[in-house]
Amino acid sequence: MKIGVIGVGYWGPNLVRNLLSLKEPVGVICCDLNPQRLIYMKKRFPIVETTDNYQSVLNNPDIVGVCIATPIRTHYTMAKEALLAGKHVLVEKPMTDSSKDAAALIELAEQRNLVLMVDHTFLYTSAVKKIKELISQDEIGSIMYFDSVRINLGVFQHDVNVIWDLAPHDLSIMHYIIDEKPISVMAVGSKHFDGREDMAYITIQFESSLIGHFHINWLSPVKVRTILIGGTKKMIVYNDMESSEKIKIYDKGVDIKTEEMRYQVLVDYRIGDMYAPNLEQTEALSDLCEDFIASIQGKKKPLSNGLSGYEIVRIIEASQQSIKLARPIKI
Amino acid sequence: MKIGVIGVGYWGPNLVRNLLSLKEPVGVICCDLNPQRLIYMKKRFPIVETTDNYQSVLNNPDIVGVCIATPIRTHYTMAKEALLAGKHVLVEKPMTDSSKDAAALIELAEQRNLVLMVDHTFLYTSAVKKIKELISQDEIGSIMYFDSVRINLGVFQHDVNVIWDLAPHDLSIMHYIIDEKPISVMAVGSKHFDGREDMAYITIQFESSLIGHFHINWLSPVKVRTILIGGTKKMIVYNDMESSEKIKIYDKGVDIKTEEMRYQVLVDYRIGDMYAPNLEQTEALSDLCEDFIASIQGKKKPLSNGLSGYEIVRIIEASQQSIKLARPIKI
Amino acid sequence: MKIGVIGVGYWGPNLVRNLLSLKEPVGVICCDLNPQRLIYMKKRFPIVETTDNYQSVLNNPDIVGVCIATPIRTHYTMAKEALLAGKHVLVEKPMTDSSKDAAALIELAEQRNLVLMVDHTFLYTSAVKKIKELISQDEIGSIMYFDSVRINLGVFQHDVNVIWDLAPHDLSIMHYIIDEKPISVMAVGSKHFDGREDMAYITIQFESSLIGHFHINWLSPVKVRTILIGGTKKMIVYNDMESSEKIKIYDKGVDIKTEEMRYQVLVDYRIGDMYAPNLEQTEALSDLCEDFIASIQGKKKPLSNGLSGYEIVRIIEASQQSIKLARPIKI
Amino acid sequence: MKIGVIGVGYWGPNLVRNLLSLKEPVGVICCDLNPQRLIYMKKRFPIVETTDNYQSVLNNPDIVGVCIATPIRTHYTMAKEALLAGKHVLVEKPMTDSSKDAAALIELAEQRNLVLMVDHTFLYTSAVKKIKELISQDEIGSIMYFDSVRINLGVFQHDVNVIWDLAPHDLSIMHYIIDEKPISVMAVGSKHFDGREDMAYITIQFESSLIGHFHINWLSPVKVRTILIGGTKKMIVYNDMESSEKIKIYDKGVDIKTEEMRYQVLVDYRIGDMYAPNLEQTEALSDLCEDFIASIQGKKKPLSNGLSGYEIVRIIEASQQSIKLARPIKI
Repeated sequence: MKIGVIGVGYWGPNLVRNLLSLKEPVGVICCDLNPQRLIYMKKRFPIVETTDNYQSVLNNPDIVGVCIATPIRTHYTMAKEALLAGKHVLVEKPMTDSSKDAAALIELAEQRNLVLMVDHTFLYTSAVKKIKELISQDEIGSIMYFDSVRINLGVFQHDVNVIWDLAPHDLSIMHYIIDEKPISVMAVGSKHFDGREDMAYITIQFESSLIGHFHINWLSPVKVRTILIGGTKKMIVYNDMESSEKIKIYDKGVDIKTEEMRYQVLVDYRIGDMYAPNLEQTEALSDLCEDFIASIQGKKKPLSNGLSGYEIVRIIEASQQSIKLARPIKI
Repeated sequence: MKIGVIGVGYWGPNLVRNLLSLKEPVGVICCDLNPQRLIYMKKRFPIVETTDNYQSVLNNPDIVGVCIATPIRTHYTMAKEALLAGKHVLVEKPMTDSSKDAAALIELAEQRNLVLMVDHTFLYTSAVKKIKELISQDEIGSIMYFDSVRINLGVFQHDVNVIWDLAPHDLSIMHYIIDEKPISVMAVGSKHFDGREDMAYITIQFESSLIGHFHINWLSPVKVRTILIGGTKKMIVYNDMESSEKIKIYDKGVDIKTEEMRYQVLVDYRIGDMYAPNLEQTEALSDLCEDFIASIQGKKKPLSNGLSGYEIVRIIEASQQSIKLARPIKI
Repeated sequence: MKIGVIGVGYWGPNLVRNLLSLKEPVGVICCDLNPQRLIYMKKRFPIVETTDNYQSVLNNPDIVGVCIATPIRTHYTMAKEALLAGKHVLVEKPMTDSSKDAAALIELAEQRNLVLMVDHTFLYTSAVKKIKELISQDEIGSIMYFDSVRINLGVFQHDVNVIWDLAPHDLSIMHYIIDEKPISVMAVGSKHFDGREDMAYITIQFESSLIGHFHINWLSPVKVRTILIGGTKKMIVYNDMESSEKIKIYDKGVDIKTEEMRYQVLVDYRIGDMYAPNLEQTEALSDLCEDFIASIQGKKKPLSNGLSGYEIVRIIEASQQSIKLARPIKI
Repeated sequence: MKIGVIGVGYWGPNLVRNLLSLKEPVGVICCDLNPQRLIYMKKRFPIVETTDNYQSVLNNPDIVGVCIATPIRTHYTMAKEALLAGKHVLVEKPMTDSSKDAAALIELAEQRNLVLMVDHTFLYTSAVKKIKELISQDEIGSIMYFDSVRINLGVFQHDVNVIWDLAPHDLSIMHYIIDEKPISVMAVGSKHFDGREDMAYITIQFESSLIGHFHINWLSPVKVRTILIGGTKKMIVYNDMESSEKIKIYDKGVDIKTEEMRYQVLVDYRIGDMYAPNLEQTEALSDLCEDFIASIQGKKKPLSNGLSGYEIVRIIEASQQSIKLARPIKI
């Protein structure tokens, strides 16, 4: 089986490395317009083929799937062409720069019976898998809030603002672990240097009292990668900057007394043990590549599928609109 | 000089302790409707007088000022009566439960030429004083954002929501260190247990691209007290949970190249040293009490004055309205 | 019941405060040669009696026990006189400045059938009680090492070196939770300012391969209070600087394969979950005072008894000798 | 210029990678008895040559230097043969398993006018270089102590104990930044699984009151890499586990009053700012490789030279002897 990796700039080489290291390694063809990148790839991974011609990849019947790791604005066109050429597609996050295009790709993939995946790598981390498992087993109770902070100094992107760059990570995690549908998005952003937001806050409301909140920022002196998940039974702190103990589960919470007593506290606090489950040391991107290959082989449905890609784009789109109109946007 | 402390429940005793420990200690009369609290105070501070009659405090010509540490809804009435009785007034935060009342108190105090202070204790901490100093000396540059997180498990209040309870601390700090006036407030809150918000996010916009953001939460498993201040020259992390090194100043930032070059990064990162200034170990509330006494004596103008109390109430009021109307509120 | 507290300088007032706050409060007589301290105590705790005459305390038949919180060199004489006067005795740590004297006090207390306790406060903390419980329940397995670091800047003592000042805390914890008897002590110290050691390392060996090690230091820029306990089943990290999560229990360890295979790793690593038990928020000194009173009343045997006081003094004595002779000392 | 890398098991590939990435890359010949490792290297670095014949490396006139990354017990023989064959030599730490052999290698290298280096990688880290710079500029004052903790779970070595495995890192740092000569070594170790120490404490004394101490441990549930350096002017905390802010410099210390006053504290504490210098993000091993090449080219004297290798071996040897004889060893 051969896979084409389109775009071998910053992220593409990671895809190549993982594709080459699968238990059943696949052949890889690297495609980039920049000849220097192809020389680099050939030197680093002598086994790969290289080409600067995307059309030749699409025409190559040995190539069953392509990974698209090009700038965001090109995702839709390149994915569409690949699907039309009968290739399975894995596209970098965010899936497209409009939800309309994302929906179109989903439809096209369904018509052609092709795999369409988005590279929401975090869904394959052992930390997120453990959180999903805890919530599924009702260890956490009803989710009251999902609060994410992803901030650091840079890296400013050329073509997109901080929301398109950073928010897909945390939005995809929230989308994966929370079953409820969002109903509205409110976002505030600020631009300090060029015409693009370099920091933003996004708030997502649901039908229940669940609230999602995201702080994304290219202007922070410290690097923070923390998600708090408040459940009625237990609460989770997921600190991705920790080398071990990334997830801590607190048996803490609030119990409300049913009977109301005047001039008395009606709230009881529950403060129990904390534990940090041992997490397997795996490379998430490797599991994602395996998911792509297994899905191509028809063995399973992919986890990070087109629909999740679409939902994330839709929320980002609504965030942008909310910033522009300075009001919440229904979705 | 004698001072009446009205309300000796949770916070009042701290005021009493500090008033009794000033370099030039003042006499203290404790006033509370609950006789148990008066017995407790008498036992703990045998030197104080006690009464359950507020009117007798107001009628007592020896008492020059009162500290009002009663529930928020009573602040306005009690402060007004005290001012009308010719007493200088220090009122707990938040100043009142409406900005109209706060404005009325300010006017009354001015008419009567009386001191009117609000207990924004944080303004007197060595950490906040150091931040104010750094900004005043233009060490930090233009402030790009002020991001505050004040979260922990409880303590749920009976009479107010999490905004009225926790936000005054951080709003007063922002108001103190930032000269610019806010122009709009957007808030989102959520209620999980009773009819009051137990978590909220407040975003404040200014005429410039400066943005203020506040996360306040009674439902967090971990206690966080962190303020990030992003300046164009330097950036500050103020972590109030640290016993030492509460403030860290990062010589980090972004420099934009003036000339635009196509296909090139236009942003340069500046990453220099970090330093944590040594902060004096003082009790902020003691300095606040001294400020009150010195202001009564006409030696100075108080730092945490009625106007700052008013501004904070106005922002909280706007936050409430924003939550209700689900849109930003101009102020 | 009345208790005399002898010496109300730095630590004595804490004893007084706790004795006065017991569920069944006792009467307290404070004794000090410094009249200022007696005035201070009277002001802070109006209920106490005061005297500058130790003999009058001993002669007072209402006083059943004394707490001795005077300089270390006076412990032996004052405790002996108290026992001879028929008083139960609680003496500050370290119990005496020689193990011979400590043994003499134990004998005297036994002859007179009087309670003799030493103020090893840490034994009454919820953290140490939890560690003791875990070890007793064989959760930890065989203890392989006990490693303690207690370092900070100062406070330099006038009359004793860093070992007599700081080591009793950690030595008493080790003595409490580990059943095995030490067989030798090796210590190294260094003096940088006056004639007394301001930092030291103590190593204690046991008949098994268990090893105890203590780093105590008045010259550290950072404050560290950490004990590592390595067991064959689980391992404990006790960080007393944490406000919550003082104890973390790691399901980590090493399993050795029984069969030896050439050129192969014989060691397997076990890496499981970590958990931090919720610890009650109690004041250890209050529990110690209750233990003293209950022991006087004959309801129980005290935990922090004379024998544990003796063992700790014996190890410190051996440490001093080891530093002097530059070799391990058998005990 | 060609370099032979002898042994491409765990560490050798890192040397190869860095040698190939130098500004002026050198040719690399990998030598190993295990054909699998040679296949691996050829696959990962197609540009390298491979051989299983050490003698052929030594006979190859194109090869000017060899890096010896084989088990410790083989270092001496392999390095001697290389020097006798006229090759410059970089040998892994520890240099040899006896100081006698280390001294012999130094003599041989001097006779033949060949470079002899030891891979004390830490000397080339920006953290250690900064510490050296601060001490050289007398920012720190006289060093009072050097306290190192290097502990974690495993990795148990087959052929050496924890001292030979871990201590060279910290001993080489101490040797580099401290000018004074050690006069005696006292060590205590413990064996819990097989016949080799899996944890140890080493104390090094100097003529002055300077004291060096090292805790090395394969049985710790947490990974710690911390060095405290106490100077009379300032104090350094070097935490190698921090991703940024590895070095913190504390303006803290003790000042002794010259005049002695009875009943008065004679010690003053100085507590000033802390700062964390920005450290360059460099790969230390790359700088070490450059040092090796530049030294071969006669451009400079190597930093991590044979003499430092010898001194570290001598201290480890003395530690072993001290454990065996249970007394300090003069050196």
